[in-house]
Amino acid sequence: MQKHDILHTGLLPEKYRAKLHTIIYEADTRAGKLFDIILLLVIVISIIAVMLESVASIKIVHGHTLAVIEWVITILFTLEYIARIIAVREPLRYIFSFYGIIDLLATIPKYIGLLFPGTGMLIAIRAIRLLRVFRILKLTRFVGAGNQLMTALRHSRVKIAVFLFSVMVLCIILGTLMYMIEGPESGFTSIPVSIYWTIVTLTTVGFGDITPITPLGQFLSVVIMVMGYGIIAVPTGLVTAQLMAGDITHTNTQVCPNCAAMQHHDNAHYCYKCGTHLKD
Amino acid sequence: MQKHDILHTGLLPEKYRAKLHTIIYEADTRAGKLFDIILLLVIVISIIAVMLESVASIKIVHGHTLAVIEWVITILFTLEYIARIIAVREPLRYIFSFYGIIDLLATIPKYIGLLFPGTGMLIAIRAIRLLRVFRILKLTRFVGAGNQLMTALRHSRVKIAVFLFSVMVLCIILGTLMYMIEGPESGFTSIPVSIYWTIVTLTTVGFGDITPITPLGQFLSVVIMVMGYGIIAVPTGLVTAQLMAGDITHTNTQVCPNCAAMQHHDNAHYCYKCGTHLKD
Amino acid sequence: MQKHDILHTGLLPEKYRAKLHTIIYEADTRAGKLFDIILLLVIVISIIAVMLESVASIKIVHGHTLAVIEWVITILFTLEYIARIIAVREPLRYIFSFYGIIDLLATIPKYIGLLFPGTGMLIAIRAIRLLRVFRILKLTRFVGAGNQLMTALRHSRVKIAVFLFSVMVLCIILGTLMYMIEGPESGFTSIPVSIYWTIVTLTTVGFGDITPITPLGQFLSVVIMVMGYGIIAVPTGLVTAQLMAGDITHTNTQVCPNCAAMQHHDNAHYCYKCGTHLKD
Amino acid sequence: MQKHDILHTGLLPEKYRAKLHTIIYEADTRAGKLFDIILLLVIVISIIAVMLESVASIKIVHGHTLAVIEWVITILFTLEYIARIIAVREPLRYIFSFYGIIDLLATIPKYIGLLFPGTGMLIAIRAIRLLRVFRILKLTRFVGAGNQLMTALRHSRVKIAVFLFSVMVLCIILGTLMYMIEGPESGFTSIPVSIYWTIVTLTTVGFGDITPITPLGQFLSVVIMVMGYGIIAVPTGLVTAQLMAGDITHTNTQVCPNCAAMQHHDNAHYCYKCGTHLKD
Repeated sequence: MQKHDILHTGLLPEKYRAKLHTIIYEADTRAGKLFDIILLLVIVISIIAVMLESVASIKIVHGHTLAVIEWVITILFTLEYIARIIAVREPLRYIFSFYGIIDLLATIPKYIGLLFPGTGMLIAIRAIRLLRVFRILKLTRFVGAGNQLMTALRHSRVKIAVFLFSVMVLCIILGTLMYMIEGPESGFTSIPVSIYWTIVTLTTVGFGDITPITPLGQFLSVVIMVMGYGIIAVPTGLVTAQLMAGDITHTNTQVCPNCAAMQHHDNAHYCYKCGTHLKD
Repeated sequence: MQKHDILHTGLLPEKYRAKLHTIIYEADTRAGKLFDIILLLVIVISIIAVMLESVASIKIVHGHTLAVIEWVITILFTLEYIARIIAVREPLRYIFSFYGIIDLLATIPKYIGLLFPGTGMLIAIRAIRLLRVFRILKLTRFVGAGNQLMTALRHSRVKIAVFLFSVMVLCIILGTLMYMIEGPESGFTSIPVSIYWTIVTLTTVGFGDITPITPLGQFLSVVIMVMGYGIIAVPTGLVTAQLMAGDITHTNTQVCPNCAAMQHHDNAHYCYKCGTHLKD
Repeated sequence: MQKHDILHTGLLPEKYRAKLHTIIYEADTRAGKLFDIILLLVIVISIIAVMLESVASIKIVHGHTLAVIEWVITILFTLEYIARIIAVREPLRYIFSFYGIIDLLATIPKYIGLLFPGTGMLIAIRAIRLLRVFRILKLTRFVGAGNQLMTALRHSRVKIAVFLFSVMVLCIILGTLMYMIEGPESGFTSIPVSIYWTIVTLTTVGFGDITPITPLGQFLSVVIMVMGYGIIAVPTGLVTAQLMAGDITHTNTQVCPNCAAMQHHDNAHYCYKCGTHLKD
Repeated sequence: MQKHDILHTGLLPEKYRAKLHTIIYEADTRAGKLFDIILLLVIVISIIAVMLESVASIKIVHGHTLAVIEWVITILFTLEYIARIIAVREPLRYIFSFYGIIDLLATIPKYIGLLFPGTGMLIAIRAIRLLRVFRILKLTRFVGAGNQLMTALRHSRVKIAVFLFSVMVLCIILGTLMYMIEGPESGFTSIPVSIYWTIVTLTTVGFGDITPITPLGQFLSVVIMVMGYGIIAVPTGLVTAQLMAGDITHTNTQVCPNCAAMQHHDNAHYCYKCGTHLKD
């Protein structure tokens, strides 16, 4: 406690800072929840505004309104960014954290637009605002489910990497073959384009912008398709096996002090084998 | 029994009402089964009639026949609706139940058509008739299998929601990027259209109405496709894991004679909760 | 044995019949194996001939050769058909069996062509010859694997039926909605066509011959695609769960006579729990 | 050791040969790792050069640079090939091994190009260089994961063969039917093309270069799509079941002190084979 007081380098009296921190960074109080919901709404509105602005017919009619909305959102985000800085004990740490940088990027596009007009990349920066949504959801029960999925993916990551690498090599070789078989007349204008087509086919997307016309090319296409159709089984199998291993794994690490039986129920009080009381 | 007699508010003498109820609402008697089969046939005919009416060439030749069929079906449904009302003890409860409203909607389109000619929405209402099929199937052994599937989906619903939300955020960001890379010349006319294309590609549908033409756009497309090809593993893994969990579920039917705890280990000798010896 | 002699109604002296039967119907002897391999080759050649005949450019050049091949194959099949009849004890039983009819259909197209020239359906009958391949493979180790797959599919068949039925109802309702939203101008010319498009999209095939052009239609398409992308998890999950259940299931039904422990190894001689000898 | 000295037929004094062998064939020393990384880079550069050369616009501008790069790579590969030969005890064995031939093929395209100008197949040979990458990766931890995947696929190979064969027969029959229904006017110009379309549809690729236009053809397409959508469950199920079987494999490492039986139950006290008490 005292140590914290010493470390205290906040920009606000500790009493107000703590209160502000509870509202902005936590979601246990009513005010905290309200803050999160409003922030969520503002983010969603800002994203919708970016989308609508890109539709030519809407921009002509409602361009002015959208610009006003963007300004209002920019001001709100600016105020929030300042509040976030003064609500933490160590502002610099926040500013250079992942979410600190996201928050800054979410705030500044309009200001940059004033300084350097006509910067196209600003749309992309404005789209980054969407990432802020994840911060808010962090405070909900979604995290558990998300973590489980992430863990399953992380555990399979070496296998998935091997799989993706093999598929990539396969696509380069097959793409080169297709280029040699079909040639530029069928739309296979170069090896990179031919590899692009191979991946479009192998993943069963099949745009149809380029299609083989020679019998040999169609035969090889069929081989690629059937491969892709079968290969999809691999990532699915990996993730399923991982998810199930995660589900089955007994998370209870209690060991019976009498007979050393393991794999007790998660809410076991007594050993299922010898009846000895388990220490919690 | 007596309580029921007191509550009795039916529109028909109890004796006839009970008989009618058995025929219309149940399927254990021969008459009940016959009623269900005829109803199923009428519903299917009515759906086929709606479909055929939408085919211009058929409407021109057989338009009159289809109109007659629609009238016959409307009258049959009207009679059935009245029968359903008088066959239950508490008509109002039926009328405002889910299936009561579906039944009403299935009956009235033609009558509305008389009052307000040229209402296009009537087709949609007539298509709703199809939902009635589920009521009839409710009485068969399909329910068990359906329930199992539903339970598996329900148990995975938080994970599926997290998954769908993450995919949605991904699609918005990738769609915005594709819009910036390809631009309106390639058909990526706005961010919403670009997001639509991203989802078409990520789900491996790949219509081909819009396709990237710049090398960078094609490269990003490849990334999206491979993502989509891999991401499909997640819902599949979730549902499979859930279905299997349902299958594996502890087959041990022992119940603790002391605390009534269930789901004991398959080789448990003592209750894991209270330590009582379990009888084998 | 004697009973069989009494039942004997074959068209050939028993000694020769038995020998012929071994060659034609079995594959344990050298002659039997050779017969099967030659038959397999002839079938494959006949199928390739049917295919090549359908290619206009090949038919013009090699039409005569293909006709000769077809005649040779017809004669070989005729001889084989006669041999099959005289090689069994009860010819009528063979003639009206499933494979007997397939064999007859495989033989006659050319003869029918002589009687009724220009019958288009003959191609289809000739393609049926391919089904004969399964008879030959029946004698190999593929049957085991095939049976396992079939069993897995059979066990899931009620669930798969429920699933397919629900998807069908979904497609009819969504197809009707798309017809109402997009209308004939976008290619959604009638409800059946619209349902066709919905299935093309839901199964992630996505031909692109019909594509939505209104924003609302594109939005609903996105919903259909994401549904299809997720729904595919259901059959996969069902089949996987079934295949695994088949793999895992302990086929050992031994119970220890001393401690009643179950789930012994398939080749267990002693109880893994108390060491008692298990009776076989 | 001595035996090896006798067998020694290397082209270099043993001392230098052993050192060179460590660098070229192993990756445990710093020099060995460096060699592998440089080789990996050279291979990747050579592949990128092949790709870029196929892009017409790039070849016009940078054709000369690419030719120089190709010459440098050819010289490097030549030197490496010679080094590999003199670094092994039995050069002939290396030269005729799988990777020896790949290494030779990776080296010679440019030399062949000098002798026989205008040989188109040289691109394909140059693409083979990519296979060399696998040799380098052999020395990493990817092998374990790769082997697991390979084992899972190998164990399911009979089932996968049965599955692929059945799907092939299905495609030929359905393709013939589609040819008869749709005919050349819809793009189904011959049975092989029609089978190609059937596979494109069944695997849910759906290019859209050929699409059915008759109602009956569209109906059969729908059947094919739904089949393909369901059939994909089979390979996925097979691979998943196999991967999980590998994962679940008994983790109990007890070995019977009497009969050396393994794979005991996780809670076994006595050997299931000979009844001997197992030490915990």
